[in-house]
This record gives sequence, C-alpha cells and structure tokens, in this order.
Amino acid sequence: MVLGGLECGGTKMVCAIGDENGRIIEKQTIPTEKPEITMPLIINYFKAYPIMAMGVASFGPIDLQRKSPTYGHITSSTKVHWRNFDLLGELKKEFDIPFGFDTDVNGAILGEVTYGSMKGILNGVYMTVGTGIGIGVYSNGALVHGMLHPEGGHVPVKRHPEDTFYGNCVYHGDCLEGMASGSALNERLGIAPEKVGMDNPVWKYESFYLAQAIIGYILTLSPEKIVLGGGVMNRRELFPMIRAEVERLMGGYLHTYQLDHIEDYIIPSSLGGDQGVMGCMKLAYDAAVSS
Amino acid sequence: MVLGGLECGGTKMVCAIGDENGRIIEKQTIPTEKPEITMPLIINYFKAYPIMAMGVASFGPIDLQRKSPTYGHITSSTKVHWRNFDLLGELKKEFDIPFGFDTDVNGAILGEVTYGSMKGILNGVYMTVGTGIGIGVYSNGALVHGMLHPEGGHVPVKRHPEDTFYGNCVYHGDCLEGMASGSALNERLGIAPEKVGMDNPVWKYESFYLAQAIIGYILTLSPEKIVLGGGVMNRRELFPMIRAEVERLMGGYLHTYQLDHIEDYIIPSSLGGDQGVMGCMKLAYDAAVSS
Repeated sequence: MVLGGLECGGTKMVCAIGDENGRIIEKQTIPTEKPEITMPLIINYFKAYPIMAMGVASFGPIDLQRKSPTYGHITSSTKVHWRNFDLLGELKKEFDIPFGFDTDVNGAILGEVTYGSMKGILNGVYMTVGTGIGIGVYSNGALVHGMLHPEGGHVPVKRHPEDTFYGNCVYHGDCLEGMASGSALNERLGIAPEKVGMDNPVWKYESFYLAQAIIGYILTLSPEKIVLGGGVMNRRELFPMIRAEVERLMGGYLHTYQLDHIEDYIIPSSLGGDQGVMGCMKLAYDAAVSS
Repeated sequence: MVLGGLECGGTKMVCAIGDENGRIIEKQTIPTEKPEITMPLIINYFKAYPIMAMGVASFGPIDLQRKSPTYGHITSSTKVHWRNFDLLGELKKEFDIPFGFDTDVNGAILGEVTYGSMKGILNGVYMTVGTGIGIGVYSNGALVHGMLHPEGGHVPVKRHPEDTFYGNCVYHGDCLEGMASGSALNERLGIAPEKVGMDNPVWKYESFYLAQAIIGYILTLSPEKIVLGGGVMNRRELFPMIRAEVERLMGGYLHTYQLDHIEDYIIPSSLGGDQGVMGCMKLAYDAAVSS
C-alpha cells in the first residue's frame, strides 16, 4: 500500500512516501513559511505518487473533534500565519483519499508504539523537548484525545531554589515549557544551548524540571514506557541526569519492575527522528482500512 | 443478576448487594480492623445472599497484574495489618464465583461513568480528597492500570508563598497529599478541619494545591469531566474556590466548551457516596459476563 505521511512542524514540514510496515521509501523536508508558499510545495510533492491514503500530524493546538465545523484546522497557534488555517481541508481539496489527522506528538508516539521501542505496550508517553514542550499519550491501546488533546508541556513545576530565571511562557511564566523548553534555554543562556558545557548549572535545572513533569505523568497515567525526543534531548548526557532526578523525587514511593530498570523505562527514541513520519504512515493506514 | 460489591477503605468496609443496573438492594458497613476480625464479618455478610459475582475495590497500593504471583494482594500499604494481605485470595477461598478487582478510586470512577454524572464519556478523572488523596482514571473508554495504577495524590506542587506548613507525606514531604489531604489539614490546624471557618487561609491554600493538581490532570489526560469526592470535599464552598483557581492558573491557555462551563466540568459526585460500591457492581457484572 503506497501511503503519504506529512509531519507539520513549526520550522519544517516533513513529507514522506511509505507503506503500512512503517518503511519510508522517499522523504523531503520543506521549510514552514506562510501557507501560500508552503502548501503548494507539499501538494506538488504528494501529487507525484499514487498514494492511497495520507496521515497528517501537526503542531497545534489543532481541532480534532470530527463533528466540529473547524475539524482539521490549526486553531490558536502562536504561528500567526497558520492560525485558523484549514490544513486538512486544503489537502482534501487536492486529494480524494482517506486522511488520518492528529497532533505531531501523538504522531510520534504512534510511530514508537507501532514500529519502535514501545511496540506492544498499551500505555505510554512521548515527550518532545524542542522549541516548545509537548506530550503524546497512548492509553489503553489508543491515542488520547479527550476534551481536546494532552498539552503536557504546560504543567506547573516547583522552581529550583537556585534558579533565578523568570520563565518565558507567555501564558504561565514559569510552567514547564517556560522553564525548560529550547526557547527558555536560549533565553536564559543568551547563546544556543548546544554551545554550553555540561558543567553549566542550567542542565541541573533542566533535569529537575523535566523529572518533575515525568513524575506527574507517571503518577497520573502509569505509563509502561516513556520516550523523550526533540532537539534538546539530543544532548544525551541529560538522560542519566533526568533518570536520577526521577528516582530522587519519587522518594521510593512506587516499586515496579520498570522503575527498578529505569534505564529501559525513560529512553530516547529508537527511530532516529523518523518516529513522527512513521506515525503518519500508521495514521494513513488506519484511515485507509476504516474507510 | 444478584451481585456483591465490596469497597475496602482504610477506616471502613462497605459491603453491598445489588444488580447490574447499579441498584443497591442492601448495604452494611464494617469497621476496618485487623484482617482476622474484619474478614470473617465480610464473608458472613455475603454468605447470606445468592451472589453470582463479586466486585472488590480496595485501598492500596494493590497488585492488579493478573499474571503476578501476588495478584489481588494489598502490597506496601501504610496500614500494617493489611500489608501483603491476600485480599482477593481469602475471598476466593469462600466464594466460587467470578471476581472483579481494582483500586478504590477506579471503583468510584467506574460507578460515575456507568451510573452517574460521567455516563457516556470516554475520558475522565475521579479525585478523592480524604485522609489521603487518590485518583481513578478512565481513558479511551476503560479504567487505566498501566505499569501499576495511577497514584495522582503524590504529584509535585508548587508551594503557596504564604504557606509555612512543611507537608506531612512520609515519602515526599510537600507533595499534593502532604499539603492538601485531610491528614495534612488536621496536622496543620491541630483541630478537625470541619471546625474551621471559611475565613481561615487554609482553604485558600487547599484550593491552590488541588487546582494545581487538576491543571496537571487536564493537561496530561484531557478529561471530559472531573469529579471530586472524599471527606474534605464535603465542604462544598471549596468547589467554586477550586474552579476559580483552575481558571486563574490555566491563564487562558486552553479554550474548550468544558472550561467555558467549568461549573459543569469540575463537580461533586452525583451518587451521594455510593459511587464506589456502585462501581463494584459494575466490576462484578463485567467479571460475570466475561467468565
């Protein structure tokens, strides 16, 4: 089955052709500019292939309520050109095929659960720590939507006692995203975080905030596995620091096989950055078989 | 169908006879003492009825992994006499019928979802604020178990800047339960919280902590409804205070129909204290039909 996958990010759009086994046959990246510039490039890319269905996973917030008049729209995004943009509608005008549609982070966890290191589990969390922070949630064997969709990047966190940064979330100031996103790191450091050594106290704060959020996810969702992705997590030294903070903050309260093997519980993605677009293949496949 | 329901709490055991429509025909409360005293009373109660299946919802932590050698046991409870007690095994010795087994808070949300104000939803949270704090979680149309089961009473919370109480959780000090449970209220006030007027600042702190936890649940689980139960929530003046704090802390970040109608979103139980034992009837029914 020839399937199309479109992962919409704030800086780039990843377009891919693949199949129901998650194999990516062809992939192209298009910069995210205004819709008038970017959408024709996306449409041209996919027109060259005989795709039977397409999966779209987008930055948000997006409208996922199928009965809503704005289903498939990007809604209150901070990216002004894309605010209230009918993303799914514009694609449907060009392609008379079944479409799957979800958040970028739900796409990523779907990739992990279907083809990656979360295969076989029924409950998991994918957390991306990039420019912003987001979570995709899989519970009882399905993606979680609920009232809207999870927005776990904005959970409240206790401040580190030595940390004087104000927090740059425009809504909450010092919520998780305001303290620990890539954008917060840039703002607190004044230079790109990649240029800062591990001896800088910023990484101690970063681990403290991310671990707090992870503790919250564990105690609320009881996930069987947690995958951390996004640009900030390319700094692999953070993984052991975060795991140690999770153990410290948990204070021995829960005893499980997974927490006793925390290096296999809180892990990087196994799909090398393709988890999102591979999740799109699964969204496309599910749309094809249910249509 | 004649069904038995047993809701096991730290201070009392509620035994009930009912049917698959959630109707309670007969109910009796037995104090929770040592198992040697309490268990024979429970067994005698149920022996008098021709029950076809039994649902048990218990305080915990409990082992819910069906393949585990200690499935059905109370595990690391702070109630020493019940620690490592084979609750389900002792009942199964006496009654050769199908059994359903889950946490007390999962029992309560199952009651709400099946017979109460959460009927028809696929994603919800039940939070009990009593001696301790616990959550039952319903996601994608089923109770959440996952790695263990949700233990959302112990999520980290930011301290209120005017609050000097140290927090009495033996594991975490000032986590949610350490700051806002009935036991924390007793300890910080030195008298029963029922005797303290609404002008006491303790209620401002209480709303602040509970609202933070609720924000975390909303952003992580995207529930369609949140029911608050337990002894502390009998103080009904807390509901408008908690709702106002949730709105303030959310900072206008999410816009949904439910948040715009918050008085119908964060609500007391509609089942008048019977939600737990009614959930047990559903556990019993599900066990009967799947056996």
